[in-house]
Amino acid sequence: MLLLHRAVVLRLQQACRLKSIPSRIYIQACSTNDSFRPQYPSLTFSGDNSSTRGWKVMGTLLGLGAVLAYQDHRCRAAQESTRIYTKEEVSSHTSPETGIWVTLGSEVFDVTEFVDLHPGGPSKLMLAAGGPLEPFWALYAVHNQSHVRELLAQYKIGELNPEDKVAPTVETSDPYADDPVRHPALKVNSQRPFNAEPPPELLTENYITPNPIFFTRNHLPVPNLDPDTYRLHIVGAPGGQSLSLSLDDLHNFPKYEITVTLQCAGNRRSEMTQVKEVKGLEWRTGAISTARWAGARLCDVLAQAGHQLCETEAHVCFEGLDSDPTGTAYGASIPLARAMDPEAEVLLAYEMNGQPLPRDHGFPVRVVVPGVVGARHVKWLGRVSVQPEESYSHWQRRDYKGFSPSVDWDTVDFDSAPSIQELPVQSAITEPRDGETVESGEVTIKGYAWSGGGRAVIRVDVSLDGGLTWQVAKLDGEEQRPRKAWAWRLWQLQAPVPAGQKELNIVCKAVDDGYNVQPDTVAPIWNLRGVLSNAWHRVHVFVAP
Amino acid sequence: MLLLHRAVVLRLQQACRLKSIPSRIYIQACSTNDSFRPQYPSLTFSGDNSSTRGWKVMGTLLGLGAVLAYQDHRCRAAQESTRIYTKEEVSSHTSPETGIWVTLGSEVFDVTEFVDLHPGGPSKLMLAAGGPLEPFWALYAVHNQSHVRELLAQYKIGELNPEDKVAPTVETSDPYADDPVRHPALKVNSQRPFNAEPPPELLTENYITPNPIFFTRNHLPVPNLDPDTYRLHIVGAPGGQSLSLSLDDLHNFPKYEITVTLQCAGNRRSEMTQVKEVKGLEWRTGAISTARWAGARLCDVLAQAGHQLCETEAHVCFEGLDSDPTGTAYGASIPLARAMDPEAEVLLAYEMNGQPLPRDHGFPVRVVVPGVVGARHVKWLGRVSVQPEESYSHWQRRDYKGFSPSVDWDTVDFDSAPSIQELPVQSAITEPRDGETVESGEVTIKGYAWSGGGRAVIRVDVSLDGGLTWQVAKLDGEEQRPRKAWAWRLWQLQAPVPAGQKELNIVCKAVDDGYNVQPDTVAPIWNLRGVLSNAWHRVHVFVAP
Repeated sequence: MLLLHRAVVLRLQQACRLKSIPSRIYIQACSTNDSFRPQYPSLTFSGDNSSTRGWKVMGTLLGLGAVLAYQDHRCRAAQESTRIYTKEEVSSHTSPETGIWVTLGSEVFDVTEFVDLHPGGPSKLMLAAGGPLEPFWALYAVHNQSHVRELLAQYKIGELNPEDKVAPTVETSDPYADDPVRHPALKVNSQRPFNAEPPPELLTENYITPNPIFFTRNHLPVPNLDPDTYRLHIVGAPGGQSLSLSLDDLHNFPKYEITVTLQCAGNRRSEMTQVKEVKGLEWRTGAISTARWAGARLCDVLAQAGHQLCETEAHVCFEGLDSDPTGTAYGASIPLARAMDPEAEVLLAYEMNGQPLPRDHGFPVRVVVPGVVGARHVKWLGRVSVQPEESYSHWQRRDYKGFSPSVDWDTVDFDSAPSIQELPVQSAITEPRDGETVESGEVTIKGYAWSGGGRAVIRVDVSLDGGLTWQVAKLDGEEQRPRKAWAWRLWQLQAPVPAGQKELNIVCKAVDDGYNVQPDTVAPIWNLRGVLSNAWHRVHVFVAP
Repeated sequence: MLLLHRAVVLRLQQACRLKSIPSRIYIQACSTNDSFRPQYPSLTFSGDNSSTRGWKVMGTLLGLGAVLAYQDHRCRAAQESTRIYTKEEVSSHTSPETGIWVTLGSEVFDVTEFVDLHPGGPSKLMLAAGGPLEPFWALYAVHNQSHVRELLAQYKIGELNPEDKVAPTVETSDPYADDPVRHPALKVNSQRPFNAEPPPELLTENYITPNPIFFTRNHLPVPNLDPDTYRLHIVGAPGGQSLSLSLDDLHNFPKYEITVTLQCAGNRRSEMTQVKEVKGLEWRTGAISTARWAGARLCDVLAQAGHQLCETEAHVCFEGLDSDPTGTAYGASIPLARAMDPEAEVLLAYEMNGQPLPRDHGFPVRVVVPGVVGARHVKWLGRVSVQPEESYSHWQRRDYKGFSPSVDWDTVDFDSAPSIQELPVQSAITEPRDGETVESGEVTIKGYAWSGGGRAVIRVDVSLDGGLTWQVAKLDGEEQRPRKAWAWRLWQLQAPVPAGQKELNIVCKAVDDGYNVQPDTVAPIWNLRGVLSNAWHRVHVFVAP
């Protein structure tokens, strides 16, 4: 609450500073009137519609609904609301130079002057620049309030051309043509297969990542499966029975719901690339997300097929229903000991944050292996079997392994390294962003921290001076369960900016309950696939004079 | 085998180099005779007693028995064998300047000239300088061979004074007066309580650490317990029954034997001290050792007392029979979940390497908690109970916890950090030693690596240039079991010394199967108690011209 209050005060300070620079503000003398109220029948107005010029605090101090508006814009909106724009025109307005436009329904808004006043921060509003607001408002229900609609109405400059409909151009020869539509906020690292991550400022906005911006790691086209005919094949144990499970069958097993963070082995690969070239997608800090997953426990399903833990080492192999042109499916495996351990809570998940799995995340069923690298959480699950050896899949045997920095593509022996299962301790800064200018006085630093194997995050240290001195961040989000800390901790630190400092080298590092720490630098953990990039995360920012 | 052969060849080369510098060799013309055969009735001689002057390779190429001798010393020995020396005189001969003397039984030997020829390396023989050989030969049975005795006989210079017996001076008011006699090779960090570590060159000589040089971490005087009257009290669960177990009772539980590495949380603390002062014993790299432990499983004993795993978090508290003058016993606890998990293999151990526990290691019964910091392996175990909270012992609540480098004794809040249980990945170099001069051509680097929580060591990287480039070391010792990698891996690397290099900055770092790595530097993990010191281990050596 104190925090929110501080945020609002800060916005007010910013607004006041802005006001003292008239050239930045579009000032136009006109009488205000209320005819520009939003067009949505569901909206209601607050009682106070009196027209006072100058600054006005609108909305509430509670949550993101706390907004500030500049009354003058109502004037401009009044004059321009009847103009017609094409989608193309809108999409070319994405910077302060061109103007920053967004749409809501068929309406077009010029929010250039509002961006700096956005209570959630300018960068979040900028994610929608040149396009529709709906995908973002869908993430943050706080926008669906009357005062927010009212505020927006003041920036209206016209309507979208009603004839401006983009005809879908499906390339039938394209195996990816049937991939689902994605959220525009996702930063795309590859379109085919689709791989994308949420931007940092959205990533740690919520403890639970909204489904539409959950990072997506696909290896192949997304299969389009019919839930009515879907069957999951479980190969039975000798003496047991094989199972062919419909979705209903799976629902008949006891349902478990757990919060689990998934992280791609390649998260933060882009930092390794800066040391030396690697093969792989250029993930930044966003190949990690958290959801509540619900489904049947793998141990229950395996037990029904007659499997039990055995003395000799064995592996549970998963096959996806996604496949390449040769028919080769995605595959991976985990040790049987983990699969059969009720405490390991491995799920055959059919729900993600209370919804059926989105197609990009494995509809109708995926594996969720808490504490283990994303690559083993096989999506569009088709087949489960127990084998004496690990999966022979490329992704188990010839990928997702770590090597010494001395190993290159001429010398690599993939058999010499174990497949990645549990991941090491990780953390990253999501706010401020690298290269950003922060206010003097105090800086707010936010980020996430997580460790594999159910190991809890016990501390995050933050440095403003490149690692010479440290401060302990405050851990947010849910408490973690001992030995089952499957989900991340979000963290933040408000720290005074040392007087006279023109730049800050912000660094974070986390500690897990095995007292594992992150390595200081990237080069000594560099590896040819660019996986396991968990050195201290570093962000360089400038301090506003 | 190739390695041993190389070692012998190297020794021959060194010997030849030695011969070309006559001033270093004590040369005296005399006829050899065989009257100086050792006095031990059990000894036999090899058939070849012929007297040839000059170099002679004695012994065998197999193992440490491969020895070289310089025949001339037999002459000197012949002339001086009747002189009488006091123990004090012997103990003052510990350097090349004073001469290096050792004793075996009542005989005194001047091994100054042999030190460089010692097949196990000069440093190992130097450990015995000024005192008896027996404690070291007891560690390395390879010495109990006729050719070793024969070789030693050639260096005999006299006998110990038979009247020179040190009267034991027991201070009855000293609570430590009854502490056991310790092995002279141990490097003592504190006498009262006794805390000592094996020197690096002995530490990784064997995969299993011999009992006499296993690192010793005592917090209080060593109790002297009568195995006949000893009882272990197990507090029963509600509805269960409390147990009072004799040693025989404990033997009646199924016996389990496992190889487990124990490490003190303070291992390598001396490196933290170099950054900034800390409170604690100045452990170097030797507060870690490995033994085969045998005993009853804690889960079996707890089950007999009616305990079972419960949903709520609980802890198994251990109390030692060692206590301070106020009667406060050493205590610690581990989570009940670990104690009850058969896969965690927690033992109530009564054997160490096939012997009853030595007094310094908890005779008659100690806890062994595989994968967990040494502080929880409570020795001289007296009482076990299950509690909703961790042990209230000082050592659980006010010690053995990790903090941010920013925390000092004015700001520390011990409740803010979890007690150390599993330890992070660790490795250290035991050969060569810091400051040593190594041969040009090729350098052999040896060390150990281990990780907590049963996580296997999957790789050790070694650098000769301070961490710029890396080579992968060869892992020795036993294979590790998945998820139960309780024991360390020894490792070594033979690496060419880059031509023209005058110094080497040797560094090692290990990776465990959770792909956790060691941090690059000490300062960012510095903490006021100097625990968890697991940064890259660094050794600076000179290269012989």
